Amino acid sequence: MRILITAGPTREHLDDVRFLSNASSGRMGFALAAAARAEGHSPSLILGPVDLPPPPDVPVTRVTSAQEMHDAVLAALPAHDALVMAAAVADYRPKQRAKGKPRRSAGPPTLELVPTPDILAAARAVARPGFVIVGFALEAGDLGEGARRKLAEKRVDWIVADAPAAIGVDVTTAEIHGRSGLVMRLDRKPKADIALAIIRQLGATAV
Amino acid sequence: MRILITAGPTREHLDDVRFLSNASSGRMGFALAAAARAEGHSPSLILGPVDLPPPPDVPVTRVTSAQEMHDAVLAALPAHDALVMAAAVADYRPKQRAKGKPRRSAGPPTLELVPTPDILAAARAVARPGFVIVGFALEAGDLGEGARRKLAEKRVDWIVADAPAAIGVDVTTAEIHGRSGLVMRLDRKPKADIALAIIRQLGATAV
Repeated sequence: MRILITAGPTREHLDDVRFLSNASSGRMGFALAAAARAEGHSPSLILGPVDLPPPPDVPVTRVTSAQEMHDAVLAALPAHDALVMAAAVADYRPKQRAKGKPRRSAGPPTLELVPTPDILAAARAVARPGFVIVGFALEAGDLGEGARRKLAEKRVDWIVADAPAAIGVDVTTAEIHGRSGLVMRLDRKPKADIALAIIRQLGATAV
Repeated sequence: MRILITAGPTREHLDDVRFLSNASSGRMGFALAAAARAEGHSPSLILGPVDLPPPPDVPVTRVTSAQEMHDAVLAALPAHDALVMAAAVADYRPKQRAKGKPRRSAGPPTLELVPTPDILAAARAVARPGFVIVGFALEAGDLGEGARRKLAEKRVDWIVADAPAAIGVDVTTAEIHGRSGLVMRLDRKPKADIALAIIRQLGATAV
């Protein structure tokens, strides 16, 4: 399968210097790309700003904002059979982006935010029948509840639920949920193991 | 001299996952620490969240937020003779920090911001006579104008002015300004060269 994988955070700039972001390191996306290769698939990455190097021999498109990631995913979609959205995409961006770096004294006491594009929904809307979509749900509460809600809302095939503590580290706990329920729980496993389980699930169920 | 150097960005969390930050890599602070060592001084670092490793053999205190950096600087100040504030400290933080990771649908359309502590001003207020303070001014406009304004506002000894394009890269243009005016302009130089010029200036003028 040709598997499109997003990885890393996005940055939503207030001005040329300041941005909203998160600490995603890209590790899960890189582990997914490596696992996809190991299983004989053809992965490609759409990668937000990270310092870690992506795995060699995987085509990489670099983006900064959620809007850019949205555009890159939709552009790449027709040439792929599956999408795995491992990136930690910002939900909101500042409504306006100022030029340069406004001075401290000129700073706004409030920052107006607007939603970023919903990449999973946009991908589902244009994907051909049989195209497989895997979403991630970063949930501070019950993993299963978050996964079930996101499966229903986003019309995706699989949801991988993990906790905020997963960001930026290698070992984490994740659950893979499909439309018919919990498929697998991986307790404190390296992201390489979780990635392999996701890729195998995806390969086993594709048309 | 015992030189306290701050480096990297700070992160100002909205909740457990999302934060306001900037792309500072820590490179300028690391170059300053290395230059200080090379010139026979004793540097120590207070370091925001970065991925690059700090130079070996330099004591490092790691912090996340501007408030933590403020507290760490004030705690370390009495054991030092100079402070070089190379960190790109966030000017504003969210007024409230939410627990966990609030859902997209629960997200705020506006984010209320409050100023972070002014570390240069706080350091000047408690520093003993003869303590040397070097500030940085990241200026999108005229470097000299920004430096002169910040020298007057902050009562520091030296201001290093550079452009937002300096963030995250190695080669940049900087100006060193003292209370009596421009001392040196360094045009498209590696940060190692700029750091050495700053450390020599500092060493030459200390009591």
